[in-house]
Amino acid sequence: MKQLTIIKIGGNVIDNSENLHQFLLDFTALPGEKILVHGGGKIATELGESLGIEAKMFEGRRITDIETLRVVTMVYAGLINKNMVAQLQAKGSNAIGLTGADGNIIKAKKRPVKEIDYGFVGDLDDNSVSAATLDSLLKAGLVPVLCAITHDGDTQLLNTNADTIASSVAVAMSSLYETRLVYCFEKKGVLKDVNDDASVVREIKVEEFDDLKADGTVQGGMIPKLHNAFEAIKKGVSAVYIGKADELNELANGTFGTKMLG
Amino acid sequence: MKQLTIIKIGGNVIDNSENLHQFLLDFTALPGEKILVHGGGKIATELGESLGIEAKMFEGRRITDIETLRVVTMVYAGLINKNMVAQLQAKGSNAIGLTGADGNIIKAKKRPVKEIDYGFVGDLDDNSVSAATLDSLLKAGLVPVLCAITHDGDTQLLNTNADTIASSVAVAMSSLYETRLVYCFEKKGVLKDVNDDASVVREIKVEEFDDLKADGTVQGGMIPKLHNAFEAIKKGVSAVYIGKADELNELANGTFGTKMLG
Repeated sequence: MKQLTIIKIGGNVIDNSENLHQFLLDFTALPGEKILVHGGGKIATELGESLGIEAKMFEGRRITDIETLRVVTMVYAGLINKNMVAQLQAKGSNAIGLTGADGNIIKAKKRPVKEIDYGFVGDLDDNSVSAATLDSLLKAGLVPVLCAITHDGDTQLLNTNADTIASSVAVAMSSLYETRLVYCFEKKGVLKDVNDDASVVREIKVEEFDDLKADGTVQGGMIPKLHNAFEAIKKGVSAVYIGKADELNELANGTFGTKMLG
Repeated sequence: MKQLTIIKIGGNVIDNSENLHQFLLDFTALPGEKILVHGGGKIATELGESLGIEAKMFEGRRITDIETLRVVTMVYAGLINKNMVAQLQAKGSNAIGLTGADGNIIKAKKRPVKEIDYGFVGDLDDNSVSAATLDSLLKAGLVPVLCAITHDGDTQLLNTNADTIASSVAVAMSSLYETRLVYCFEKKGVLKDVNDDASVVREIKVEEFDDLKADGTVQGGMIPKLHNAFEAIKKGVSAVYIGKADELNELANGTFGTKMLG
């Protein structure tokens, strides 16, 4: 089976032009088939503020009213995605920037309103990603660059968490490729001691996850991140890597950062 | 040779949600392979105004400073393109929204500064369009939807006239398909009498063009439009149609509007 790497980057790479430039060089140099997934960053919040639209958050998640959806569609799918594609093209990567609406690649369901109305937020399930369409783009020599916008198949664009997009794409593609999933974030990996960058846990097996939660090594926002990683592995992804974008090649090879496996 | 239709729409379709809905239904119903090219419309100007960026024009052409480029990238490639794709998907057309940077489909050259500095505006030549990449998307069952943003291959996005994109794409694709080019605009076609909608000139042959300019039938902004149409025909496009979007099928069949041929 051919190998495919899905890499997710967030604000800490996107918001700093130096970091982004270096990351895109490293991404281009990475061998084999690949797909890039990117989140938003502070540009959407800044544009929203310029337009007098206040960012509404609940437990770290953006509430996407119709005005906010317009802003994130412009910033994620327009400004960030297309500038990233133009930079990748200049570096020799034949990038193609996409939302989930394009080619019906990711069809989401609007999150039901319960205690909180998250607005135009899309959730994914096991049938959301069209692996066949992504595969036809890869076969045409293209490098898909996905932003965090999806659609419901009934004209509505939706805002979808980029971590979730990355893991859903990885799971769907694992029927066609040996798939690895790389999460770039602000730390060097899962840390034994959150204040000590040298305390990276090199490898976590699924059966160790409960112990690491119990002893506090994995806590807070890391719990859902790692939970999603192990879910992806259960559903066919070979391995999930988490660490800093500035060691991309080593991170994707498992020689830096934290490797999660089944 | 398989038939391919390239259709260009502008502000008079995009700015009116009723018109756009009907157009996208008609576009979806149109048989055969197709590519949609869209311009901007008033949304970019409105967003620019909200952000305190004044629209700068010279002889009907937008001057694209770096702030304006950000705005048109957000509006054309983000807001308009992705909402159009989501609507086409809902209507059963497997649309994929693209700029010229995506897949390096259209590589432009920044317009040289002469009397006027047009800013980040890209001009096209005979080698700008990658017919092979567009063809691979068509072969994958996708319907390309191109907005008026291109790139220079060296990280810079550029604003490019949508009429020019449509004719350059039509010319490039004519090596692979029997290609027809349809320009939708606000009138029913080229009019003998500009105040009489019933005076549509049904057909113009290239050798009649000079006479129609001389007798004033073709004047003002229509001259470059028709000049471009005949250039496209000279370079391999089978026929160019010009007329109203609300008669799309008839327009593309040559039973309404004005047909230009070699």
